[in-house]
Amino acid sequence: MNKLDKNIVSRASKSRLRTWLKILKTSNLIEKQIKEKLRDEHNTTLPRFDVMSALYRSSSGLKMNEISGVLKVSNGNITGIIDRLVKEGHVLRVAIEGDRRSNLVKLTNKGIRQFEEYAGAHEAWINVMLKNISEQNSHILIDLLDSISEINRS
Amino acid sequence: MNKLDKNIVSRASKSRLRTWLKILKTSNLIEKQIKEKLRDEHNTTLPRFDVMSALYRSSSGLKMNEISGVLKVSNGNITGIIDRLVKEGHVLRVAIEGDRRSNLVKLTNKGIRQFEEYAGAHEAWINVMLKNISEQNSHILIDLLDSISEINRS
Repeated sequence: MNKLDKNIVSRASKSRLRTWLKILKTSNLIEKQIKEKLRDEHNTTLPRFDVMSALYRSSSGLKMNEISGVLKVSNGNITGIIDRLVKEGHVLRVAIEGDRRSNLVKLTNKGIRQFEEYAGAHEAWINVMLKNISEQNSHILIDLLDSISEINRS
Repeated sequence: MNKLDKNIVSRASKSRLRTWLKILKTSNLIEKQIKEKLRDEHNTTLPRFDVMSALYRSSSGLKMNEISGVLKVSNGNITGIIDRLVKEGHVLRVAIEGDRRSNLVKLTNKGIRQFEEYAGAHEAWINVMLKNISEQNSHILIDLLDSISEINRS
């Protein structure tokens, strides 16, 4: 590789590094604000919101290990979160026929209404935080980020 | 607001939500791979890499609370990381004249060489993970993400 080629490679590499650091920074910035708003305006936490979101998307309910698979957090944490949701009447544990070792976890109607309230607030926050992004720019951003994630799936 | 206007507002809001979820997913995907590579190829961790990175960027050294300020993790974690780096000879604690309660933390020459090795590997990984992003697209991505972060600074 001659010197000019090396410079171009190095410049592209530095651009990619800057791009990654900007993705990380933006992600952390938005996530931090979502955590604060969930705590201050809804007295709840992001892991709890994520657990309810996973349950909301599954009509038939989820096993404990399926919830932790979706969330990539430890089983221990999930157990504490589910225990509290059960106590509050937002979640039910349902026996699985023919499987005495595990339960299905489902949102109750109360839990569904509660999550819909959180989700509506969450979408409204994001709509404000990303207000500088037009619909056209949304598509550009999603396409570029897709081109990164499609070669990095685990 | 008439029905057509409401539909347009709702569509933009959904696009922004999808954009945020894509930013988060991409960020988590890349971070997960960096963590795995730091562990598997360099037997180290991301918080340790971040601490060394903060120290590398500061020629005069940092106080403990400055390091935790940069990293937004608890002082307790930082103390354990610094203790190990000191033991390995990568970091030195230096007394501050006129301040008996706190030390400056600095990378040793060995620590500088070690971090430069990590940082070179890190840049090379990112260069591969973001290989689909041309220099022009890097600029587009950075500009769009900047337009988000500039209105969300804390």
